[in-house]
Order: sequence, then structure tokens, then C-alpha cells
Amino acid sequence: MTLDRRHLASLLAAGAFAGAFAGRDPAAFAQAIQGTATSEQRPKVGMLVYPDMILLDLAGPLTVMSLAMAEIVLVGRDRKPVATDIGIPIEPSASYETCPRDLDVIFVPGGLKGTIERMDDPATCAFLAEIGHRARFVTSVCTGSLLLGAAGLLKGYRATSHWYVRDLLPLFGASAESARVVEDRNRITGGGVTAGLDFGLTLAARLRDEETARRIQLVLEYDPKPPFAAGTPEKAGGELTRDIRSRRAPVLAAARDAAMRAKQRLEK
Amino acid sequence: MTLDRRHLASLLAAGAFAGAFAGRDPAAFAQAIQGTATSEQRPKVGMLVYPDMILLDLAGPLTVMSLAMAEIVLVGRDRKPVATDIGIPIEPSASYETCPRDLDVIFVPGGLKGTIERMDDPATCAFLAEIGHRARFVTSVCTGSLLLGAAGLLKGYRATSHWYVRDLLPLFGASAESARVVEDRNRITGGGVTAGLDFGLTLAARLRDEETARRIQLVLEYDPKPPFAAGTPEKAGGELTRDIRSRRAPVLAAARDAAMRAKQRLEK
Repeated sequence: MTLDRRHLASLLAAGAFAGAFAGRDPAAFAQAIQGTATSEQRPKVGMLVYPDMILLDLAGPLTVMSLAMAEIVLVGRDRKPVATDIGIPIEPSASYETCPRDLDVIFVPGGLKGTIERMDDPATCAFLAEIGHRARFVTSVCTGSLLLGAAGLLKGYRATSHWYVRDLLPLFGASAESARVVEDRNRITGGGVTAGLDFGLTLAARLRDEETARRIQLVLEYDPKPPFAAGTPEKAGGELTRDIRSRRAPVLAAARDAAMRAKQRLEK
Repeated sequence: MTLDRRHLASLLAAGAFAGAFAGRDPAAFAQAIQGTATSEQRPKVGMLVYPDMILLDLAGPLTVMSLAMAEIVLVGRDRKPVATDIGIPIEPSASYETCPRDLDVIFVPGGLKGTIERMDDPATCAFLAEIGHRARFVTSVCTGSLLLGAAGLLKGYRATSHWYVRDLLPLFGASAESARVVEDRNRITGGGVTAGLDFGLTLAARLRDEETARRIQLVLEYDPKPPFAAGTPEKAGGELTRDIRSRRAPVLAAARDAAMRAKQRLEK
């Protein structure tokens, strides 16, 4: 792609991006859920964004939280736009320094390559630990739970992750479960990628109420009918599972190494 | 949000966004699906983007198509970034003029407010009609099928849409079905928002093969377990359904008006 810088520069000058994210009004069809919500009623949800994250890990929960009239903060290490797996960049609305400290929820999406990089990043682990010890809910989808673990937030908790890294959770003192969504006290973790929808609705029911979650589900027409039975290693069978593990072997090994380093830091 | 223009301008100068989208390498974890694919094997998928679209409508199919090693073109009326429902802007990689004419697939996401606007836009309808008459597959998710209908691409076909506008499809000569994904010859349409996942896997199986689709499903851990049974009007019950219809009444009326105008144009 040839980037048309002059065009984008003129958009920037016109303020075309201003108003996105921070303090933004809820999604276009949030009125389908309810009328208005005062700012006291609106839960404050911080969502971590980082390079090489999987956009879909974020988009499901973000859509559900928008419809739940949450105030969303997209938090990055700094305000630089991050590149996601499918090439759509996301611009954080706050940095670790400027992120509000009174979040109701901290949420961490996955994206293994980026997760590994952030597990080794002291600033990210320190930020998550600080916010996580204050937030009402500490949450993740996919490999995001590895980052919660590396920040010391899963010790003594039951949790889940993408099926191919779930076995790393015990390194952080967590007990790994093979479930779509695992709730243990105020920790709510989801499985791989598409679990963000099941996770998001679960969180919406806790933050608001079950009726709101059911409304959101109806507006999103979330009545899944996968054309194949292949969403878990058990259903997809050994051959496909081994093949994916083997193709991902280098990055899975890197994830184990990063988890071991985090474990050693946590034990100090 | 205060936009830090100087910072973004320096990113632009550094080419930070270059390489996104057009001709882009497949998603970060596409190697989990298969090794390499020559450009002859890579299906060319054009995905319409427009203001007020629902990001999740696009993100599901786009993630599946990336993993299917498709070459993705995000097509806008022009190259201006468009604002999506959840505030994450998307920058098209091609305009209607520059979009390749030999697409294997044309895909239209939904987002009712934006869909209505585009149904009344002659340039959009003409572009879709031209590409749609040449493409191997003509596809949509959510209210995107209304736009296919307005472009004259659903006449004589069975199709579906978001539950709250499905009844408008017959205005375009289509026969409306209440199903998660409807395939009729080379038209493949999905239901509301989250149907993008079921649709995407169905399309992946047609474009590539069922084994590839199953691999993608496993990598995305698509083994849905909605915490509530509320994804359709039948399951959610009459009260919730009526309430959502009534809150959306103005935009649903506007959609009917736009569909009537399109019907009259198509009958000329």
C-alpha cells in the first residue's frame, strides 16, 4: 500500500480522528439496549492494547461493553497506534501514566507474539499489577491471561487461556481449567479468541445485570451455529491439533521461556 | 481525547502504517494454518468499509479470511478512514475506482445507520453491482445484505440479514430466510453481527476446503458457549424483542424507506 500521507495529514489537521475512544459516547446502536445512563452508572473499563494483538480478541468484548454503556479506555504503553494481527491499527486513548486509576474492569486481550513481548516488559507488568489490585474485575481473553499471570494477578486463582498455552498457567500459581469462561471471585478469564463473546456477555451480566446481557446478546444476534465441530482439540481431533502445535512450536517455546522468566521474577 | 498530531505526523513520516492491508502478508498466526501459499492460490477478497459500520461485522470474517491466506482489499468510496461503531477507525486500502476488478469475493458488513446511507448512494450501488456480477462469491453479514439487495444482487436469491430487518429483503426480490447462514448458488449471506464467524468458516470451506476451515476454527477456538439463551427473538422472548424493535423504530423506518427507494430504482 502506498500511504497517502498528504491526505492523512489533512484529515489530521481537520481533526477527523478527534473524539474517538476516550469518554466517547456508546456505540451507534446502544440505544437498542437502554435509554441513557448517567456517568455514575457507567462502568469504567480499561482495555490493554499492544502490538501484534489479535483484533478480534478485543472487538468482541469491546462491542459488548459499548452496548453495556461502559466508558472505555484503550490503554497502551504509550499513545502510539499499535498494529494488530489483521492490519487494522488501534490508537490507545491513554498511556499507562494517564490511565484512570479507578477502573471497574481491567481487560487484557491476546495475540501470542505480542503477549510474549509484553510478559517481558516490566512497565506493562507493573501497570497491570497496580490496576489489577484495585479493579473490581481482572479479566482476559485468549493468551491475555498469561500477561495477567506474569503480573502476579492469577496466583491462587482458577483461570483459562487459549488451548495451546493453557498448560503455562500453573507457572504463575494459577490452576488451569479447560472451560470457555472461568470465573473465580473477581477474576474472569476466557478461552481462545472467539471466547471474547461468551466472556463479554458474562462480564456484562456481572457489571450490570442478566437482563442487560440478554438484550446485548439479542442485538448481536449471538446464536452461534459453527458449520463444523472443530473448535477444540477434542472435537478437531489429534491430527489437526498436533499439526497446529508443531507449526506453532517456536512461538509456544518462546511463550514457555517468557513464562519461566516471569515465574522467577514473581518468586523473588 | 486530545489528538497528538505531531506524534502521529512523525509516525506517518516514519512509514509506521505502510504495509497495512493491501497485498499484506497474512495474519500473525496464519502459519498455524499452513505453510506458504503462492499468489495464484490466494483468493482475492474485497471487503466494503463505510462510516458507521459495525467493526465486529468485519473483524470476524476478516480474521477468518486472513487465516485462509486470502489477499484482502478493504474498499471504501474513497481512501478516507471511516469511523466504526466502537470508535476504531478503518482506513480503506482501495477506493471504488482503484479496487481490483478480478475479486473472488465481495463482502459487505452491516451497521444499520451506515447501511441506510449507502443504500441511497448511487456510487456504492453501482460499484457493488459491477463487482458482484463478476465475483465468484457475493456475500454479506448482518444488514450488509440490504446493500447487496439495493445493488440488485439478490433478485431471485434466498438470503438472510439481522433479524430486525430481514423482512425488508423481499423488497429486492429476495426470499428471506431465518437462518444463521444462507447459501444460494454463489450468494452467501449471514445473520446479525456475530454470524460473521459462522459465515466466515462457511466461506473458507468453499474458497479453500473443509479441512482448512476446520483448522481455522481450532486456531480461533470457536467452540461457542453463550452464557444465556437470548440470541434470537424466539429464544429471548417477546418482551425483549418488542422493546428493542421499539427503541430502534426510527432507524428501522428509515431502513424501510431506503429499501423502498432502492426497489423503485431497481424496477425502472
